Amino acid sequence: MDLNEIKDPSFLKELDIRQLNQLAQDIRYFLINNISKTGGHLSSNLGIVELTIALHYVFNSPKDKILFDVGHQSYVHKILTGRANQFKTLRKYQGLSGFQKRCESSHDVWEAGHSSTALSGAVAMAIARDLNNQDFSVIPVVGDAAMVGGESLEALNHLGSINNKVIIILNDNQMAIGKSVGGFGDFLSSIRLSGTYNNLKQDYRNITSKNKIGKMVFNVSKRVKDFVKHGLIDDTIFEDFGVDYLGPVNGHDLDDLIRVLNLAKISKTSVVVHVVTKKGRGYRYAENDYAGKWHGIAPFNVNDGTIKHPEPKDKISWSKLVANHIEKNMAEDEDIIAITPAMIHGSAMDNIFKHYPNRSFDVGIAEEHALTFTAGLAVANKKPFISIYSSFLQRAYDQVNHDIARMDLGCLISVDRCGFVGADGPTHHGVFDIGFLNPLPNVIICTPSNAKDAKRFINTYLVNNDHPYILRIPRGYIKDEVVKCNELIPIGKWKIENNDNYDVTIICYGQNVNMIRDYFTDKDIKVRLVDALFIKPMDLEMLEQLVDDKPLIIYETELKINSLASNIAYYYSQKGILKQIYSFGVDDHFSVQGSINEILKDEGLDMESFYQNIKEIIDEKRKN
Amino acid sequence: MDLNEIKDPSFLKELDIRQLNQLAQDIRYFLINNISKTGGHLSSNLGIVELTIALHYVFNSPKDKILFDVGHQSYVHKILTGRANQFKTLRKYQGLSGFQKRCESSHDVWEAGHSSTALSGAVAMAIARDLNNQDFSVIPVVGDAAMVGGESLEALNHLGSINNKVIIILNDNQMAIGKSVGGFGDFLSSIRLSGTYNNLKQDYRNITSKNKIGKMVFNVSKRVKDFVKHGLIDDTIFEDFGVDYLGPVNGHDLDDLIRVLNLAKISKTSVVVHVVTKKGRGYRYAENDYAGKWHGIAPFNVNDGTIKHPEPKDKISWSKLVANHIEKNMAEDEDIIAITPAMIHGSAMDNIFKHYPNRSFDVGIAEEHALTFTAGLAVANKKPFISIYSSFLQRAYDQVNHDIARMDLGCLISVDRCGFVGADGPTHHGVFDIGFLNPLPNVIICTPSNAKDAKRFINTYLVNNDHPYILRIPRGYIKDEVVKCNELIPIGKWKIENNDNYDVTIICYGQNVNMIRDYFTDKDIKVRLVDALFIKPMDLEMLEQLVDDKPLIIYETELKINSLASNIAYYYSQKGILKQIYSFGVDDHFSVQGSINEILKDEGLDMESFYQNIKEIIDEKRKN
Repeated sequence: MDLNEIKDPSFLKELDIRQLNQLAQDIRYFLINNISKTGGHLSSNLGIVELTIALHYVFNSPKDKILFDVGHQSYVHKILTGRANQFKTLRKYQGLSGFQKRCESSHDVWEAGHSSTALSGAVAMAIARDLNNQDFSVIPVVGDAAMVGGESLEALNHLGSINNKVIIILNDNQMAIGKSVGGFGDFLSSIRLSGTYNNLKQDYRNITSKNKIGKMVFNVSKRVKDFVKHGLIDDTIFEDFGVDYLGPVNGHDLDDLIRVLNLAKISKTSVVVHVVTKKGRGYRYAENDYAGKWHGIAPFNVNDGTIKHPEPKDKISWSKLVANHIEKNMAEDEDIIAITPAMIHGSAMDNIFKHYPNRSFDVGIAEEHALTFTAGLAVANKKPFISIYSSFLQRAYDQVNHDIARMDLGCLISVDRCGFVGADGPTHHGVFDIGFLNPLPNVIICTPSNAKDAKRFINTYLVNNDHPYILRIPRGYIKDEVVKCNELIPIGKWKIENNDNYDVTIICYGQNVNMIRDYFTDKDIKVRLVDALFIKPMDLEMLEQLVDDKPLIIYETELKINSLASNIAYYYSQKGILKQIYSFGVDDHFSVQGSINEILKDEGLDMESFYQNIKEIIDEKRKN
Repeated sequence: MDLNEIKDPSFLKELDIRQLNQLAQDIRYFLINNISKTGGHLSSNLGIVELTIALHYVFNSPKDKILFDVGHQSYVHKILTGRANQFKTLRKYQGLSGFQKRCESSHDVWEAGHSSTALSGAVAMAIARDLNNQDFSVIPVVGDAAMVGGESLEALNHLGSINNKVIIILNDNQMAIGKSVGGFGDFLSSIRLSGTYNNLKQDYRNITSKNKIGKMVFNVSKRVKDFVKHGLIDDTIFEDFGVDYLGPVNGHDLDDLIRVLNLAKISKTSVVVHVVTKKGRGYRYAENDYAGKWHGIAPFNVNDGTIKHPEPKDKISWSKLVANHIEKNMAEDEDIIAITPAMIHGSAMDNIFKHYPNRSFDVGIAEEHALTFTAGLAVANKKPFISIYSSFLQRAYDQVNHDIARMDLGCLISVDRCGFVGADGPTHHGVFDIGFLNPLPNVIICTPSNAKDAKRFINTYLVNNDHPYILRIPRGYIKDEVVKCNELIPIGKWKIENNDNYDVTIICYGQNVNMIRDYFTDKDIKVRLVDALFIKPMDLEMLEQLVDDKPLIIYETELKINSLASNIAYYYSQKGILKQIYSFGVDDHFSVQGSINEILKDEGLDMESFYQNIKEIIDEKRKN
């Protein structure tokens, strides 16, 4: 059928199983073709086609509330709720969001971008529903990896103590972004390996004794076994339990899915429906991906699965630059330990994990534990290195504060995806971390503009190991440079370029240094360029030297509030240095999705606007 | 015995059970008498006397690592490791910390103040130990409430997937700060009610079928049952498991404790030892406390359990002021829902929970869930009110950012214990929240100096319900005032006092307004006083009016970095208003413990120092 004609999911009710299966094929074809052009989250959406169809077949959205945890797997939901015709704009500037978005559709009742929030939201909605004496289902759809994020478990514990019904769909896609981690993952493996998910009526006894972590969720007790065996719902079975269990069911069998969801629907109490799905289902390159490469994918050629715009040959990603240098040092220094919260591939740590399996730890989507675990390793005199995306580090703010900074522990936190990240949009931009990390006592924050400084900063940490070292790196690529392991960097020293003949001084940091240098090279404004490569400590000596009668401009692609500019203004004011600062940065709002250039333009931070603004500042100054 | 003579725990090995029990009595007597004078955490320490003795009897600290989660229950540990003679200084300025503190003793191998970090630290230490081929035990002691904090569960999941041995002591004191919350708490109740903890050799079968949440931790499987029945360790029993279970054991029976800890010690794999203790054990007022009043207690009279310095009669605590006003509104407005993460008593919400049990939710030590749960209630068109301590809100930074602020949801977050909190010290001072909340788009932050403004702000939220409203209140007391539910406050408007005849302008907020007003009333410096009761949005109109030739002083008891002063300096600089600001606040460090006055003095923020500093500023200005 023409998916563009779908207005809402009500048409599904008229279809028979054969037609629903045909629809699933159409959607798969649609997803592969569209995402091959726009890029996006392919694997997780291919894996959830039948499940989403079954959910909308059995339930009545938006009266019934379907919450997709994280939300990157809501593409099928978007198609079924009348948004197929917007897929050309997926994740583009002013286009369709890659996540659920409440302003897009009444069917998007929740929204996120970070993991493990849907259960908390669902518990709240169920309580509100019952307080209002309303009657509808609340159905969070949670991945296996997200289910063991601390917040999900907190919500589950709450749910287990109340009588408000929630139908939890455990979308067990067997990999998470990389692979399931932890005892819970072992449990899921054992349940899947047993093959029971092919038949709802099978005996579950063997599974129950294999692992206990999973039992929190999966009460595969004798009672449930009896229920399954008899194929009957018996109220006395469920009434004692807070959260019960149904499954595992084959997530690509619409018959089974509809049957189990109908059981869940009429259940009197909260229930977990365990659905086993295959990420990338129906597209062999994605199906055979075990590294997580196809989790979030750039535009690709459908026929051979090659990426359309491969990485630049003369450059290296910042993530890889850092990971490579750590790996190189790990060969010499046995105390270095690498940590990631479920981001081996995204943080380019594949080789570290391959070559140093004993000293590499993927703790799963568990940012809080990841950072305190880092603290513990430091206390034990190891040299921990953790790579984490800026927006996910928000999840572990207190652990960096209370555990790492307060104890002043030697560790290296590589904060990846700083600044704008592009298509993932407002939930993923790394624009808050300077504001929340800078006030932490004892930390050193470096935001290098080139490979050499990044590596020298890492070296300095490995040699000194005396404080929390925070390395801010962006999404994107940089020219690699050879740096020996003994080359260090002076902490807190900024760099200055073109100190002789200039019209304005521009302070900036990170890759913006290169962008501004390149842009102004052939312009009529002569720029004295300051590479403020340390956000903390600032180079106070240089700051005082910078004061003259030329305009002082600070350019950042982070929030203006609590920015470097704000810290400099405060420092000058305290010192009685009454110098105006022209600060460019992100306004007090959540920034949009789009290409980096589109976002910069949207924020008025593109180089053309910046140039015009400086022109005006200079003209204004000349007038006075 | 004279506890002051204890140098380290090695003497314990020579004692027999009778002597150990006598020691327990001596320690209890010591604790009750000392804490009655200094105040401190009484109940939890009385509950853990035998357990701590048994730990130090069976294990060899500091070679074996004992980590107390949170650490407020480490008093007995401090006594046994040679610090009894410092108890007169407990929680006082420059005195003994109320938590484990690495700089105090080599026996304090970890430190905290916030909950649920010890498991993460322990997992790290166990991994480091095994990488180093060392041989010692790692023993985190975790309360029942802290065990279900998300971070503990993340760590447990990690531990379940590795082979590094950790001995987890689950200190099940049956109440947490208030009472256990959630499905896990139900499980613990059922296990205790079964009475099995009195005898290690009892059959555990009945327990296992009662609840599933607990099974994650407590694999009371047939295998363990067999092990217990035969009293033998059989490697084949344990080798399949990541985390095994021993218990429950009576935490006040030294015989049982020593036996079970010896079993745990020789176990080849990680194990949870479930110890049932009674908070307040041995002091009847604390034993009979179900509200959590004796959790952290002020100095008291031992004989009758009365508090030595009761609350001031003419004032009300800020917490109570807010809770009372919410409760009053709950009578009229059925959409108001009250939430606390395990702080009913601390947040003075006892009456709310008593009178509105259906609309009050204690979600346990689960700050992440608590805030997203709040978001979910707002999405469901309720009017959520959550009360949370500033330093614990650090745990939910991302939830306030990603869930609440990003979705711009109507909710009221009452941030309690802002600024210095006193004896709890560096882990508990609420000096970071302005820095991390202010950059969040859409939020309104009010920090009132009086009851009227606090209530009017609450009213405004309840009427408008249009944004996240953040109400910052301190520890301490304020004069109550009658305010009708329809009296609103103009958002973002500051107040000014003595606008006519003054030497300096002082901007401040919260209770500091009253402190400064009172202090300067009869001083020779005439102060124009600005009550900056909105941190966000700032009163930009007034800010521009404040600029004159008099010194502009900003006084805060929060961090200087990212302070209100820093935001004002930035604003002025942006506007080209070249006005020096004299900013007083907390330097770039973690502040110490002590009385509020001692801490103020330590920071150079006491009124005498402040006065002298202003004198100097005025003199300096006159000279120029």
